[in-house]
Amino acid sequence: MLEKTTRINYLFDFYQALLTPKQRNYMDLYYLEDYSLGEISETFTVSRQAVYDNIRRTEAMLENYEEKLRLYDKFLGRQKLLHDLAEVVEVDNHPQVLQIIKDLKELD
Amino acid sequence: MLEKTTRINYLFDFYQALLTPKQRNYMDLYYLEDYSLGEISETFTVSRQAVYDNIRRTEAMLENYEEKLRLYDKFLGRQKLLHDLAEVVEVDNHPQVLQIIKDLKELD
Repeated sequence: MLEKTTRINYLFDFYQALLTPKQRNYMDLYYLEDYSLGEISETFTVSRQAVYDNIRRTEAMLENYEEKLRLYDKFLGRQKLLHDLAEVVEVDNHPQVLQIIKDLKELD
Repeated sequence: MLEKTTRINYLFDFYQALLTPKQRNYMDLYYLEDYSLGEISETFTVSRQAVYDNIRRTEAMLENYEEKLRLYDKFLGRQKLLHDLAEVVEVDNHPQVLQIIKDLKELD
């Protein structure tokens, strides 16, 4: 469950710009603010089932975007390569390289 | 015009997975295979105007995806940083770093 939550958090981070405001709201409260389904349904005065369905559909959309664009997958690949790079270059002695690695990470 | 074509080619590359098969077909023929609007309209037996409208709408969709996800913009940023990295490290003397840069570019 924790693993799924982490994955959905990342996917939400990468693809949230493609979601509707309502989808973003529900996902934000459920995954980032740790609201329960019941609390979200009270906040928006809709049924618990409606919130549940919306969140499950949004999760499926996020996975569908990931299947097509692979942003999370590529992000993980880059993280690994930048980690290797820092080791190979002995980055503590090369502040310029350290800065470039930092800048590359910030682009993700 | 050439600049616009280059940009659309890149955007198509990044976001084509989000287009419909028909959109992909028209864009592929027009931008990659250099078909004219007339040739595409003959190939699919639709009006030239319909092809034109579809391609313009698809271009707008690509720009809209770029505005939301900034994949092309980030790609350009990474290209520049990897170029700087290659110079800073004097990469010709460091085959391991050269390989990591190559692998990072292939992830884009």
